Amino acid sequence: ELVNLTSDFFADKYLENQHWVITAGPTREPIDPVRYISNHSSGKMGYAIARAALSAGAKVTLISGPVALEAPIGCQLIQVTSADEMHQAALAQATDCTTFVACAAVADYKVANIASEKIKKTNDAMQLALVKNHDIVADVAQLKDKPFVVGFAAETQDVEHYARGKLMRKNLDLIAANDVAKENQGFNSNDNALTVFSSIDKTEIPLANKQQVAKQLVALINQHYQQKHKVNS
Amino acid sequence: ELVNLTSDFFADKYLENQHWVITAGPTREPIDPVRYISNHSSGKMGYAIARAALSAGAKVTLISGPVALEAPIGCQLIQVTSADEMHQAALAQATDCTTFVACAAVADYKVANIASEKIKKTNDAMQLALVKNHDIVADVAQLKDKPFVVGFAAETQDVEHYARGKLMRKNLDLIAANDVAKENQGFNSNDNALTVFSSIDKTEIPLANKQQVAKQLVALINQHYQQKHKVNS
Repeated sequence: ELVNLTSDFFADKYLENQHWVITAGPTREPIDPVRYISNHSSGKMGYAIARAALSAGAKVTLISGPVALEAPIGCQLIQVTSADEMHQAALAQATDCTTFVACAAVADYKVANIASEKIKKTNDAMQLALVKNHDIVADVAQLKDKPFVVGFAAETQDVEHYARGKLMRKNLDLIAANDVAKENQGFNSNDNALTVFSSIDKTEIPLANKQQVAKQLVALINQHYQQKHKVNS
Repeated sequence: ELVNLTSDFFADKYLENQHWVITAGPTREPIDPVRYISNHSSGKMGYAIARAALSAGAKVTLISGPVALEAPIGCQLIQVTSADEMHQAALAQATDCTTFVACAAVADYKVANIASEKIKKTNDAMQLALVKNHDIVADVAQLKDKPFVVGFAAETQDVEHYARGKLMRKNLDLIAANDVAKENQGFNSNDNALTVFSSIDKTEIPLANKQQVAKQLVALINQHYQQKHKVNS
């Protein structure tokens, strides 16, 4: 623990003057007062990115869905439940940051008509009508003064195909893809492996502890950010 | 802590020779490999009942959905995810117990067709087809040599009406009802208040810490169990 603290303390603060907004965890889409739709995201990857960015000297705002994790010391934590709440918080924060990392596993659909009382199980079958949620990372990437935008793609098949499609369609600067069908990586696991795509290249971050993966990812994001900044200025 | 341990240690082991099977927590009904339907149950009430029954000398089997709690020391823990898994575990255990307490918040419906790959958000709206799950506590109460069966009713309105309906319809011995619409009780809260109905009477357990409520509930269940046993023998 002491070794880690010390190495963190003396680490190069290469993100000083940057403000990172990071979304993390799942969202919960209410069905009625007691039931909801969610997903297996633990928030561990997003929280690890927040810690890595803090270590590198960034100001960090962490917008988090419901998780069982402690907030990294030094970040501003904004806790949300539904995708609509996360969308609102993200757009409010995104205009004032250098880098936006959309690591949350946001529900694609919400329930069309949320029941105000617990639904009774009167029928043997029922249809739950769902409507699409706002696409948070795409909306941030449409902002007039958009930050550097990094998306995530958790896929169970054709990972590169879907990840590159998302990158282009949503106007992202980078996308970090992982294959959640593989054992021992992604979601509830403590380890992860990522393939990070820009419009022109591809970088592999091999299977490791999420905190080590986050450290490499944060450095890689900054590399691309500096590259873009240099080209644009 | 020491005071508690000591008082537990010397407590009357009035449940010796009883075997309690207790279900606890939510279930998760998969939609696809990453998404699921669940509910706000924390498992705290079921785990508190397991601890109280253990303290009173019972052999305890705890069948638990996914929760962030440590298993009470001394119980047999069976971890499950979906309602179908809980149903299977409950029926396997129920034939060999004196008392069955169905405290889990089992999903009433499961997804009709679970997708083997992550569903793509191609459409602006979609219908999720749901079919009814097995009714675990009702199926246990239908067993030929049924144990003493205690159900729970978490309601947001007309609590007594729905609870008495469940008691009769499902052939339960007791039902413990709480109003989850009230602040500071039920689900994720550390406190709870219960109204316990038998076919002939009604007992209030006032708002308190879930462990204190569990202690009273366990004593009350045993009272009714002894009464039934006496009448039947």
